[in-house]
Amino acid sequence: MKIGLIGLGKMGLNLGMNLIDNKHEVAGFDLNESAVQELVSYGAEGTTNLQELVSKLESPRVLWIMVPHQVVDKVLGQVKPLLQEGDIVIEAGNSHYKESIHRYNDFKDAGVYYLDVGTSGGMSGARNGACYMVGGDKEAWNIVEPIFRDTAVENGYLYTGKAGSGHYTKMVHNGIEYGMMAAIGEGFEVLAESQYDFDYEAVAKLWNNGSVIRSWLMELTEDAFSKDEKLDGIRGVMHSSGEGKWTIEEALDLQVATPVITASLMSRYTSLKGDNTFTGKVVAALRNEFGGHAVEKKADSVTSGV
Amino acid sequence: MKIGLIGLGKMGLNLGMNLIDNKHEVAGFDLNESAVQELVSYGAEGTTNLQELVSKLESPRVLWIMVPHQVVDKVLGQVKPLLQEGDIVIEAGNSHYKESIHRYNDFKDAGVYYLDVGTSGGMSGARNGACYMVGGDKEAWNIVEPIFRDTAVENGYLYTGKAGSGHYTKMVHNGIEYGMMAAIGEGFEVLAESQYDFDYEAVAKLWNNGSVIRSWLMELTEDAFSKDEKLDGIRGVMHSSGEGKWTIEEALDLQVATPVITASLMSRYTSLKGDNTFTGKVVAALRNEFGGHAVEKKADSVTSGV
Amino acid sequence: MKIGLIGLGKMGLNLGMNLIDNKHEVAGFDLNESAVQELVSYGAEGTTNLQELVSKLESPRVLWIMVPHQVVDKVLGQVKPLLQEGDIVIEAGNSHYKESIHRYNDFKDAGVYYLDVGTSGGMSGARNGACYMVGGDKEAWNIVEPIFRDTAVENGYLYTGKAGSGHYTKMVHNGIEYGMMAAIGEGFEVLAESQYDFDYEAVAKLWNNGSVIRSWLMELTEDAFSKDEKLDGIRGVMHSSGEGKWTIEEALDLQVATPVITASLMSRYTSLKGDNTFTGKVVAALRNEFGGHAVEKKADSVTSGV
Amino acid sequence: MKIGLIGLGKMGLNLGMNLIDNKHEVAGFDLNESAVQELVSYGAEGTTNLQELVSKLESPRVLWIMVPHQVVDKVLGQVKPLLQEGDIVIEAGNSHYKESIHRYNDFKDAGVYYLDVGTSGGMSGARNGACYMVGGDKEAWNIVEPIFRDTAVENGYLYTGKAGSGHYTKMVHNGIEYGMMAAIGEGFEVLAESQYDFDYEAVAKLWNNGSVIRSWLMELTEDAFSKDEKLDGIRGVMHSSGEGKWTIEEALDLQVATPVITASLMSRYTSLKGDNTFTGKVVAALRNEFGGHAVEKKADSVTSGV
Repeated sequence: MKIGLIGLGKMGLNLGMNLIDNKHEVAGFDLNESAVQELVSYGAEGTTNLQELVSKLESPRVLWIMVPHQVVDKVLGQVKPLLQEGDIVIEAGNSHYKESIHRYNDFKDAGVYYLDVGTSGGMSGARNGACYMVGGDKEAWNIVEPIFRDTAVENGYLYTGKAGSGHYTKMVHNGIEYGMMAAIGEGFEVLAESQYDFDYEAVAKLWNNGSVIRSWLMELTEDAFSKDEKLDGIRGVMHSSGEGKWTIEEALDLQVATPVITASLMSRYTSLKGDNTFTGKVVAALRNEFGGHAVEKKADSVTSGV
Repeated sequence: MKIGLIGLGKMGLNLGMNLIDNKHEVAGFDLNESAVQELVSYGAEGTTNLQELVSKLESPRVLWIMVPHQVVDKVLGQVKPLLQEGDIVIEAGNSHYKESIHRYNDFKDAGVYYLDVGTSGGMSGARNGACYMVGGDKEAWNIVEPIFRDTAVENGYLYTGKAGSGHYTKMVHNGIEYGMMAAIGEGFEVLAESQYDFDYEAVAKLWNNGSVIRSWLMELTEDAFSKDEKLDGIRGVMHSSGEGKWTIEEALDLQVATPVITASLMSRYTSLKGDNTFTGKVVAALRNEFGGHAVEKKADSVTSGV
Repeated sequence: MKIGLIGLGKMGLNLGMNLIDNKHEVAGFDLNESAVQELVSYGAEGTTNLQELVSKLESPRVLWIMVPHQVVDKVLGQVKPLLQEGDIVIEAGNSHYKESIHRYNDFKDAGVYYLDVGTSGGMSGARNGACYMVGGDKEAWNIVEPIFRDTAVENGYLYTGKAGSGHYTKMVHNGIEYGMMAAIGEGFEVLAESQYDFDYEAVAKLWNNGSVIRSWLMELTEDAFSKDEKLDGIRGVMHSSGEGKWTIEEALDLQVATPVITASLMSRYTSLKGDNTFTGKVVAALRNEFGGHAVEKKADSVTSGV
Repeated sequence: MKIGLIGLGKMGLNLGMNLIDNKHEVAGFDLNESAVQELVSYGAEGTTNLQELVSKLESPRVLWIMVPHQVVDKVLGQVKPLLQEGDIVIEAGNSHYKESIHRYNDFKDAGVYYLDVGTSGGMSGARNGACYMVGGDKEAWNIVEPIFRDTAVENGYLYTGKAGSGHYTKMVHNGIEYGMMAAIGEGFEVLAESQYDFDYEAVAKLWNNGSVIRSWLMELTEDAFSKDEKLDGIRGVMHSSGEGKWTIEEALDLQVATPVITASLMSRYTSLKGDNTFTGKVVAALRNEFGGHAVEKKADSVTSGV
């Protein structure tokens, strides 16, 4: 199949090579000429002109969009007038499912298929085998399924249902991921504060062999400890990129209780402020008010342990 | 009634004066002679000799023990051989209810009544009117009830049931307190981070007048903001003195879900470590492993916002 | 001052009488003629015609809208064309603050002031003294402050700042309320499952006298137990009307950790499904998969306690 | 090596066969004669007499105890007088680490080595390759390591450190497991309540191929859905067998925040009571008190949705 690939950043380039390895034809587009050249030198056609890209494809044209979520709407706006009935747009970035439904409807009005694709597996996945969750019209899926089958790990792709369901599935995947990561972190904090002197890498490695909690995240935990045995080099600040929050917002709308996933995000937020949350100030002030318990002053370097 | 008061620290002295104000006779004991003198000058008898203290009382002798929980067992050990059948020991410190049951049984074997008393209201309560929760044998309660009635605020005393129930009730009281304090703190943190420029003292004052959440804790919140309008002078480090933890341990044993009280204690524990929990390190390391998200290095002063 | 009062449901009628008691003139509007008559018989003017209502007022006209949040936009749409520059709209229902900002801007374009008012205290508050949190333009506030002062409890009203801040403050108030209520509930569940036989009403009453957790909510707890000593007559299903959810959504947007308020809402959601959450099914199924622990079948009436 | 195996229940029998498969000599003991016969027929020696069992072994004698945790102390009491200096006791059940430390010290006084072993992997692990976490004296470990190496999966055994550390590691493993399971459950509940019609088995299978959350627990989730596609046959009641609780109790003692692991246990406890927690009753009663929101009466079959 011939695919128009829009966005040749790290993910896009890796995916393009993966496609070519699997005998697909690729026409790549990016404003960055050197990125285009890199893919061309691997066997693709390439251009920095979007109109030209589209003209290189045959009906039904298949466009795979792999750009940062901030520019998805801009790219879609430029692409839309160039398409015809029956063409297929694949949006494989990190979009909110409600945006995907909105975009799907927008393209449907123009007779163009729109597939929303949640992708897991990072850059190495894009290159060697990703995990895809794909929502949208089944007819479009039937046409492009080979692309997903060929570039995914074995069994690593699924048509999840109607529009939005691909990004929805990815969103929930990430919510589960937040909870699992926090559970692992908390477990190791208990080990770290215990009376024992554990070798964390060895424990993580052990748990990856035969235990109930063996998992890819535990393998990554093992890797992390192998590089820095007590993680002394890094701070416990936990950023987040949004899907966990989306999962919780969705749960709130559905009146589904997600205490564990939510607690994991709350811990991340707390970590951004460290020991200086306003909640903490208020509680410390209250303890002082009713119990005379000393508060820690801003300049204090020693805790006043009450 | 004549009461032997053991322990003339701040709580004991205030209680002693409260008793004298209410026409009770007090014989005070402390190893600290000046504390004894202070109470004597207010109208009590006093001594630094425990045996002498007991000899000043008439059967059934009533001993009120108000010492730090670390020395309760030591004091009880010294007191026990001096007592006779029918005497009454009142332990009004911050003991775990299981210890109180154990001590009750110990004294019961010697024919001595043992009342466990949870006290709320702080020093000003001890002086002007406390809140008492009293467990132990009803017969003993019937004898000493006037002491509690006279030194409590109106309706501020209750016979809660058999041995241990006084400290049990106080334990749960504190668990609820933890949850309430955290809820208030979180609410003000939302206000503080909002797009608005709230006057926190004014908001707390408002909420104390006619709102659903009017409460003594909200009044203390108002007081705290009146002294430091944004709590700029203190750090958000939240210590704890144990009863919240006991409440949760009890809930765990009873298989009672206490997610709110527990979350409030977890927040306190997190605040002791700030942005450097081991959980945080592990989660940050994992995000780096699978997503290439930058971690914050120990020396970083700027966050790497992903 | 003369006020046009739109919406004579229970809240509106009570407020109307409260205004009249306090020497304000009231012109009431409702589509329900008998509600209009009830207020007229208490001393108000009244009409079932909105245009007529507005014509009864003098510039600057003050309209107080007290209708269910579902119809606020409809009412505002009807009111707007009847108003002139300098008029003042007071919306005192349970609106989301973002809607209030939107409506404020909409009316500002027409030169009309818009105040968003969070109201606490229920029907008896509306009748005898409410608690008001008022956002919007200060100039408008200066004109109508007497209305709030006269119908609130003492100190029970506050100008909270620019548009939306009134409903924002009410939203956070309710978030705190959720956390406090859950803390109280959890505490009593520990008491209920303990080895003791507590008199819950007596404990609640005690805690309202001198304890740290004395509060209006604890007074209501006392009332509830006075009517049904073990709450045997009701089920533990906890509904919610939205502001707690809004508080959490706001906290998520602000990256503020609100674990306690959130846990309280999660418990409410869980209670809607009882022992049949899908989370529970999955966890039970997993325990069966790896540990051979029996699951409870749909028809089981006896637990299989593992 | 020759091992005296005490306890020929399902775990013990499977382990015995595993040992024999791996060329170890086994002398089995159980009071149940047929269990002894079953192992004898597989190639072991066997007896229903503990003294005889010990007499069959050579110094240093190695005893592997695999009995329900309720009878561990009883068995240890019978075994102890039969042992000599230098003998090695391996306790591979589900004991609390503090008990293991206590027992270790008890045996140390008699010159007997005591190893505490956390075992993961269930019956099939015992038969085909388990995951072992082993605490106790290194000298004893050096002697018996081959037993663990031969009966574990590859890399599935670790000497974790001094006495108690084996059961400690297993305890924390289970705490992590609770958190992971709950995260998975919550994710699927969001899917289940969403607007989409997901095929849960297909989603779980997908997530096991290339996604970040691939794990043995997700494989078990896939298995569970393959047997009952919507888990319609089971109730969402989540029992627990203690190690998660122990992990939290340990965290409380260490002042380590474990909000995620804790939330997962709280959800389990809630599920035992369904929609009739006392917390729920109190909160529902309070909503009725201040807001007039209807409560659900015991006999109600329809919710009163407020």
